[in-house]
Amino acid sequence: MNLPLEAATTLADELEALLPGRCSTAPSVLEQHGKDESYHAVAPPDIVVFPESTEEVQQVVVLCRRYGSPVIPFGTGTSLEGHVQALRGGVCIDVSKMDRILEVNADDLDCLVQPGVTRKRLNTHLRDTGLFFPIDPGADASLGGMAATRASGTNAVRYGTMRENVLGLTVVLADGRIIQTGGRAKKSAAGYDLTRLFVGSEGTLGVITGIRLRLYGTPEAISSAVCPFDTLAGAVDTVIRAIQFGIPVARIELLDEVQMDAVNRYSGYDYPVSPTLFFEFHGSQDGVREQVETTKALAAENGGGEFRWANLPEERARLWQARHDAYYASLALRPGSKGWATDVCVPISSLTECILQTRADIDASGLIAPIVGHVGDGNFHLAFVLDPDDPQELARAQALNDRMVERAQQMGGTCTGEHGVGYGKIEYMDKEHGQEAVQVMHLIKNALDPDNLMNPGKILPDEA
Amino acid sequence: MNLPLEAATTLADELEALLPGRCSTAPSVLEQHGKDESYHAVAPPDIVVFPESTEEVQQVVVLCRRYGSPVIPFGTGTSLEGHVQALRGGVCIDVSKMDRILEVNADDLDCLVQPGVTRKRLNTHLRDTGLFFPIDPGADASLGGMAATRASGTNAVRYGTMRENVLGLTVVLADGRIIQTGGRAKKSAAGYDLTRLFVGSEGTLGVITGIRLRLYGTPEAISSAVCPFDTLAGAVDTVIRAIQFGIPVARIELLDEVQMDAVNRYSGYDYPVSPTLFFEFHGSQDGVREQVETTKALAAENGGGEFRWANLPEERARLWQARHDAYYASLALRPGSKGWATDVCVPISSLTECILQTRADIDASGLIAPIVGHVGDGNFHLAFVLDPDDPQELARAQALNDRMVERAQQMGGTCTGEHGVGYGKIEYMDKEHGQEAVQVMHLIKNALDPDNLMNPGKILPDEA
Repeated sequence: MNLPLEAATTLADELEALLPGRCSTAPSVLEQHGKDESYHAVAPPDIVVFPESTEEVQQVVVLCRRYGSPVIPFGTGTSLEGHVQALRGGVCIDVSKMDRILEVNADDLDCLVQPGVTRKRLNTHLRDTGLFFPIDPGADASLGGMAATRASGTNAVRYGTMRENVLGLTVVLADGRIIQTGGRAKKSAAGYDLTRLFVGSEGTLGVITGIRLRLYGTPEAISSAVCPFDTLAGAVDTVIRAIQFGIPVARIELLDEVQMDAVNRYSGYDYPVSPTLFFEFHGSQDGVREQVETTKALAAENGGGEFRWANLPEERARLWQARHDAYYASLALRPGSKGWATDVCVPISSLTECILQTRADIDASGLIAPIVGHVGDGNFHLAFVLDPDDPQELARAQALNDRMVERAQQMGGTCTGEHGVGYGKIEYMDKEHGQEAVQVMHLIKNALDPDNLMNPGKILPDEA
Repeated sequence: MNLPLEAATTLADELEALLPGRCSTAPSVLEQHGKDESYHAVAPPDIVVFPESTEEVQQVVVLCRRYGSPVIPFGTGTSLEGHVQALRGGVCIDVSKMDRILEVNADDLDCLVQPGVTRKRLNTHLRDTGLFFPIDPGADASLGGMAATRASGTNAVRYGTMRENVLGLTVVLADGRIIQTGGRAKKSAAGYDLTRLFVGSEGTLGVITGIRLRLYGTPEAISSAVCPFDTLAGAVDTVIRAIQFGIPVARIELLDEVQMDAVNRYSGYDYPVSPTLFFEFHGSQDGVREQVETTKALAAENGGGEFRWANLPEERARLWQARHDAYYASLALRPGSKGWATDVCVPISSLTECILQTRADIDASGLIAPIVGHVGDGNFHLAFVLDPDDPQELARAQALNDRMVERAQQMGGTCTGEHGVGYGKIEYMDKEHGQEAVQVMHLIKNALDPDNLMNPGKILPDEA
């Protein structure tokens, strides 16, 4: 579904006049901006624009409003639940040219960036300051996209998610209003928390054009390790005990044996093919030593094997590359396949049961779906490796996903710990929040975007 | 300003029929519910009700709506910016009978409470579980009130504020809708963050009737200390360095010499009358030792004197009582006086400058106003000790407060780090957030409470 041809043509002309040479209707560009990294079908926008400032975004939004055109913000296209698909056509705002790091305040541990800056580029920029930005969803995503989707990832168990680490935002609203939310103080009790409202709103309430982030001092000591387990239950129980013990572990990641096999094949590692935990510890030398001792004892009690350590930066990078390669390694298990990455998050005490039941369900289904997870948060992922042209297989994956989400929700958990809703998880919103709370989300959406032009069709089910 | 007499009488009859014996129009009860702990004038409601369940709150709200009556939630009345004053009359919902602790999930480090449970009662209840709830604003406030005002206090530097520690809420909205926000998973990317929207909304969007909170394991070791400094600048610089160093201090509190003198007199202590830091360290035995060593070194570099230690629970309680008595100790400096407690919060690197300029401003004004602060967050308080019948003195305090807020905002800070807006700080909202962002807050308020019945006159300035 796209804009009427005449409107699209005139709008494109106006946008080209506004942003000469930074406006495209080339089919390849439209196609590239109409899809994410998951199996969801391409839904290309009518036009893609590349603004360079908040004011340009504002002008684009005002024009779109005049034409009744949807507006879809686009960072790096690495989301997974159909967030960037232009379901009703319209204008995709690609923020990749808004890539300046505007401030780094080392004394206050904060920085200000444009939305197109990626997390890796920020960390490269910070290298000499002794600071770093910890949120790491795997992909080298844009910080605007990470804020918009409330991203988290491997370090969240210690440092929190984008919810905790965005101090403030600049946002262009549907009516062209530009607002600043939050501020530079570490806390504030001055009115509604607009920052947290926009973090995770997936472009449905406005376009994020500036982000102030918390930074952290690089730890004195960092130590990473990989430990295989006899059983999946033993690995997960180790995680639960570590969290309940209050060990301030920086990363604690699970890869099941299917995933370890995929990673070994893809990246040429020789890890044991068994359920495995990847750890990282941050702190002072003594602090890290203490965390390591306690964790090793917990692992040993739960059937853990030898810890394989990595302490030098290059060694650690190689170790974590294995973890970050997980999704692509899964896809490589089956050439020509498409991935469908889904995630849930449950209270930590239910994690073992939720993972074991899910693993049994996968095994019974005959589907290929490695499990990998940010288990310290109670969060884990499946990556279905699918033949995208086989509707039956897709239906089986859909049914398994439904059961997993229902299981997580019944345990008091959520249909998505970090991937977000997009349109892939819209159908689970009522069940999770109750119709009344979803109605309240609609009230807020309608108040800020009465014409439903901001990334329509995402997060909220159509109103009855 | 109150409800028309006839309406108030009929509404009171209906409420009495709904909650027999739990509905009052006694002048003393109205008076007690029309004021907080600060200097703001009493503004009594027309009626006070004492519901015992979410459903009863819902029925009260629905009745109030029918009569066009404002609804003001009331916890313990310990707020400071006129949050509970019934500026337009109406019905005060006192939640003190909603005081049940419904769940404690030790394995998942969470609990579910009704809004009338106070923080001290929760911690007493938790004593045998090895868990505690860290947020400590000084007063033994209700957890409903603490959520509604985004409270923080002494432990926030390590454990965060209510923003970080409320996992979910039950809220009765203006139209009688009951919603559940959040959940039991540690993180979620499933839609708008309604929890964070209601935390800090001060009753203007709905009445909080249930709160799910994060809990923490009691640290293996806790150590508290008091350290006097030669100068105010030296004390604050020590704090800044400790935060920049990343020491995970649990509490780091400043009392200036005026405040130390007041505390000594009020509670019979013999602390040196000089700018003083109160510390608390949480962790393993070794971890605490390490934190202590580093902090002592930083203090020594900045003119810090001897550390006076308290490690046993009773000793620590006595030490912190001195800190918690600060406000009452200030009032005792001048019998018959009223207190006006105000707070600001700034980026940590600006803290010394902000405090020194404020101290100089106080000294020049001739007002009595001790400085005390949660300085690890960049947050500090003044307590003006005023003759409430002297309008000139009040005007001087107002002018000084204006200057302090403007100073903090110019430094990138906020007009209130933790006390909230109530009606005492409404006039600073436009300056802090910009008119556009305040308009967005109005849009949200109007969407959820179109008749402006939920705690009207708080947080948001009247629309132009």
